[in-house]
Amino acid sequence: MRAAMANAEVDDDVLGYDPTAFRLETEMARIAGKEAALFVPSGTMGNLVSVLVHCDVRGSEVILGDNSHIHIYENGGISTIGGVHPRTVKNNNDGTMDIDLIEAAIRDPRGELVYPTTRLICLENTQANCGGRCLSAEYIDRVGEVAKKHGLKLHIDGARIFNASVALGVPVHRLLQAADSVSICLSKGLGAPVGSVIVGSKSFIAKAKRLRKTLGGGMRQVGILCAAALVALHENVGKLEGDHKKAKVLADGLNQIKGLKVDITSVETNIVYFDIVEGSNITAEKLCKNLEEHGILVMPESSSKIRLVSPPPNFRK
Amino acid sequence: MRAAMANAEVDDDVLGYDPTAFRLETEMARIAGKEAALFVPSGTMGNLVSVLVHCDVRGSEVILGDNSHIHIYENGGISTIGGVHPRTVKNNNDGTMDIDLIEAAIRDPRGELVYPTTRLICLENTQANCGGRCLSAEYIDRVGEVAKKHGLKLHIDGARIFNASVALGVPVHRLLQAADSVSICLSKGLGAPVGSVIVGSKSFIAKAKRLRKTLGGGMRQVGILCAAALVALHENVGKLEGDHKKAKVLADGLNQIKGLKVDITSVETNIVYFDIVEGSNITAEKLCKNLEEHGILVMPESSSKIRLVSPPPNFRK
Amino acid sequence: MRAAMANAEVDDDVLGYDPTAFRLETEMARIAGKEAALFVPSGTMGNLVSVLVHCDVRGSEVILGDNSHIHIYENGGISTIGGVHPRTVKNNNDGTMDIDLIEAAIRDPRGELVYPTTRLICLENTQANCGGRCLSAEYIDRVGEVAKKHGLKLHIDGARIFNASVALGVPVHRLLQAADSVSICLSKGLGAPVGSVIVGSKSFIAKAKRLRKTLGGGMRQVGILCAAALVALHENVGKLEGDHKKAKVLADGLNQIKGLKVDITSVETNIVYFDIVEGSNITAEKLCKNLEEHGILVMPESSSKIRLVSPPPNFRK
Amino acid sequence: MRAAMANAEVDDDVLGYDPTAFRLETEMARIAGKEAALFVPSGTMGNLVSVLVHCDVRGSEVILGDNSHIHIYENGGISTIGGVHPRTVKNNNDGTMDIDLIEAAIRDPRGELVYPTTRLICLENTQANCGGRCLSAEYIDRVGEVAKKHGLKLHIDGARIFNASVALGVPVHRLLQAADSVSICLSKGLGAPVGSVIVGSKSFIAKAKRLRKTLGGGMRQVGILCAAALVALHENVGKLEGDHKKAKVLADGLNQIKGLKVDITSVETNIVYFDIVEGSNITAEKLCKNLEEHGILVMPESSSKIRLVSPPPNFRK
Repeated sequence: MRAAMANAEVDDDVLGYDPTAFRLETEMARIAGKEAALFVPSGTMGNLVSVLVHCDVRGSEVILGDNSHIHIYENGGISTIGGVHPRTVKNNNDGTMDIDLIEAAIRDPRGELVYPTTRLICLENTQANCGGRCLSAEYIDRVGEVAKKHGLKLHIDGARIFNASVALGVPVHRLLQAADSVSICLSKGLGAPVGSVIVGSKSFIAKAKRLRKTLGGGMRQVGILCAAALVALHENVGKLEGDHKKAKVLADGLNQIKGLKVDITSVETNIVYFDIVEGSNITAEKLCKNLEEHGILVMPESSSKIRLVSPPPNFRK
Repeated sequence: MRAAMANAEVDDDVLGYDPTAFRLETEMARIAGKEAALFVPSGTMGNLVSVLVHCDVRGSEVILGDNSHIHIYENGGISTIGGVHPRTVKNNNDGTMDIDLIEAAIRDPRGELVYPTTRLICLENTQANCGGRCLSAEYIDRVGEVAKKHGLKLHIDGARIFNASVALGVPVHRLLQAADSVSICLSKGLGAPVGSVIVGSKSFIAKAKRLRKTLGGGMRQVGILCAAALVALHENVGKLEGDHKKAKVLADGLNQIKGLKVDITSVETNIVYFDIVEGSNITAEKLCKNLEEHGILVMPESSSKIRLVSPPPNFRK
Repeated sequence: MRAAMANAEVDDDVLGYDPTAFRLETEMARIAGKEAALFVPSGTMGNLVSVLVHCDVRGSEVILGDNSHIHIYENGGISTIGGVHPRTVKNNNDGTMDIDLIEAAIRDPRGELVYPTTRLICLENTQANCGGRCLSAEYIDRVGEVAKKHGLKLHIDGARIFNASVALGVPVHRLLQAADSVSICLSKGLGAPVGSVIVGSKSFIAKAKRLRKTLGGGMRQVGILCAAALVALHENVGKLEGDHKKAKVLADGLNQIKGLKVDITSVETNIVYFDIVEGSNITAEKLCKNLEEHGILVMPESSSKIRLVSPPPNFRK
Repeated sequence: MRAAMANAEVDDDVLGYDPTAFRLETEMARIAGKEAALFVPSGTMGNLVSVLVHCDVRGSEVILGDNSHIHIYENGGISTIGGVHPRTVKNNNDGTMDIDLIEAAIRDPRGELVYPTTRLICLENTQANCGGRCLSAEYIDRVGEVAKKHGLKLHIDGARIFNASVALGVPVHRLLQAADSVSICLSKGLGAPVGSVIVGSKSFIAKAKRLRKTLGGGMRQVGILCAAALVALHENVGKLEGDHKKAKVLADGLNQIKGLKVDITSVETNIVYFDIVEGSNITAEKLCKNLEEHGILVMPESSSKIRLVSPPPNFRK
């Protein structure tokens, strides 16, 4: 990956001339089964740009999971930067939202005098906060049908879509079939140093490119980073199955430690949540501190819950 | 009320010279037990201005009920106009939100790199969408303690606070004791032609006045409307108890009609929700049409639910 | 006017049922030569709603005078509330902007990767900060042609359009022929207690109605105010010519006072700016204080400039 | 530079662990004479983050040049994304704005009911659209004094501050002495592949870091890019003087071509603007096309003006 970066052919990508960015974007569009793609500096920008492009008219509302990354971990940027009103639907333990609750959350256009206009539904696959659970192609298709029926767009936060694809044994493009746009991370699970790619129709990507520039995400000789992303794509997707197995082994092991508890069925990909059983004489925070002394960096999710992620191929030197 | 308007003493209120606006604001501040007050053209502006003043720094989040008027019926304005990120907590049937759920929704400042900043909690009293149920002074105090503990402000959408006060037998100022700001409607329950008043500290009202101007809610010889509001305040608060009784009579009567059902215990003030029992051969929409032919204007809340409001003293000619 | 208010027929205008609001809006649309009209609480809201409806897509830019009311006196609301980027063109002394400067300020769509999108041009007639000077129908038509050529909308801040109409001897609808929307004040020059009306196409007004609600400008039994506005319209337009004559008399008189100077040719309507000549031993601020003691309320524009307005028919009691 | 990237020591910079980003930021802070620094993906994000941090309260206004990069080439992002109202002052040919015009543009706090609040002044050094002209330390100091007097912040778009420093023979930190924040580009003049750095006080950078995350500019193993930037900083600043000389040679040569004209005195750094004299039988657009056929990529600024930039050390392969 380092060598690929050192040898990358680059040019000014703000003007659209960078050949390596072009190669990465072309390949990602093909994998996702969409017309076009765009490299962005982060998954947060991928989601922000996507939501704002679909909700480009003042007065828009987006339906999304109450435990979704966009709602919880992205600074509320869709509102604070984009002026989009979020309407949340409860995320079930398996990462889904009930289809009928989604449909009930869509605003009746006849009430537009007092309602914002629903324009978008967002899913997340795998759903990180629900333990990296996978949404099936069938589920996504059904949400897509609801979206289509009401004239809405469907965006998928696919930061970990390759994990879902590997775990489900379903190609990425099949999982994304019903989506109008997807944000896919190349650094989290796949080990590239930096960046995400968003995919969608040509007209979506044209608008996304402009908004990326507005936000300051247009980068010049970005081929350096795209070269690394291409290597991640080619070499590391195949390693995800191993990551998932490691996560299961880890979960089994944790379950055998007195005072800890893991819901094994929830471990579908590379994320393991475990609870410290009530009555234990240690808090999540203290345990994290202890683990840090052994070189294991994890963060407590609450006073009794810790999240572990089986690591991607290590990029660091 | 008409005579009061015709004889109102007025001046330019944008410059702060209107004596009748001054009288209304002074009286409302006193009733609410706050330092200062400001007349605004509508309850929507009252809430919008209040939320935006408390959340005047970019990156703010507000905690509010998932069934609250601000979240459902105000066009999402706090986001689409104000860039404030809403975080909802489930409204129970009685209009409350569980205190521990409110507290859990407050963002940990240590996560500020990825979280918005919680700045405000909003309550609604009475809670219209929960059937006009009243929040008790004790409940509000407890929410106020949570707010204070975390350095947050507490805003109350008190569009129907006089109804709550009458139904609970508790003075308005006592119900608002823990609130930093309140929006109080003079037209909905009290029958003034137009307007709401927001109350709070002097510095809150000073900021609110400026924002009212920005939004276009500064009006010139507004004393005309304030004169009517003063009459509503003096003459119609005393009639609310009768409205509430009428609502109970109505609820009892509806319950005796085959095919309709009312939860009697939920009728605390002047709002009555009734359901069309499954199996009935009429929809809410059709029933509303029928009622309209008899001069009764109501709107269906869903395919099987209708809301009735016992009317305020009729202002129309 | 007081009697008209006391006898006004009213209903809930938020739901569109108020007959007096309907009459006022119908009449204003006819006078302005447009399809539809909407009552709003203030001229600031009239302009804000109009600009935001035309610029409803994120990334919009508006071209307007650097000395216009919208740019100088409305809290920057189009940006701070609406996220619209203003691009100013120099206002000449006569209130116009050079046509070629307007055209040069329009963004080339080929540069959209780095440019916002120009969507609107705003004029002001009469131009208050330029001394209440009138824009001619021919000038406005030429700006309208530029707008049309580039696919832009034209909004006119016509707070004082009746003054322009009277001074130029040209009907209001002729002055507004090229405009897509206009905000017309009924309180400033015409003496109604409160309010402005915006006019435009049916689809523009439908969007404006929704945005008015979002901003909190939807008012219930607003017929009270509209009744007064109708009287102002019927009785006070005819008095404007007298106001303009008074302003000229005032200007002549001021010019005869040693130490004061008025550009007589600039006095076209009811506004008179006068300068305190250099070397005088009084400042504008001091002179305003002195005038206040004689019951004349005026504000200094700068240390040596004062604005006087010949008053509308007095509404106060 | 390629080797430096290939060997860069990296870690997760979103969490603040990347040692190479730390080295770059530390060095840039030192060069700029400020407490702290932050790497961002582009100059546009550098300016956007800086303006938004200084203008974090709703209702803010910024004073900036009517020909500045922020106002002309950054999609109006400070308004369309940040809700900040811009107030422009005329840029003179030498890139300055008259100090008294700046001061006159500051809003009087006594008028806050109708004015936005001025919070920031922006300068640009070198001023690209004025031909890459340099602002002197003395001029900047005077603007800084005005800012301080009125309680405002001063931001400098220092995309080309190294060019100004070299051309003026004045250290970067001296030029930035009066500034509260500066955005410095490492790719434009210095030839790094990607990125800018913003500098300021510790508290400014802490807020900037959070906003960078909100916008999606937080990148993980960004040390790859920072390693290249460090090389650019160490090796290419010394080459700028040569670039400037080349620009002057180019300007002299162009002036000798019949039909072209350059104002030689305006060529202070690496930017050359030339005009096609009236009467020539070629347009700027056509000439750019011709040049492109010879491998020289330039864009017409207008129908008769072309901008040339003497190239940075070529990074492309």
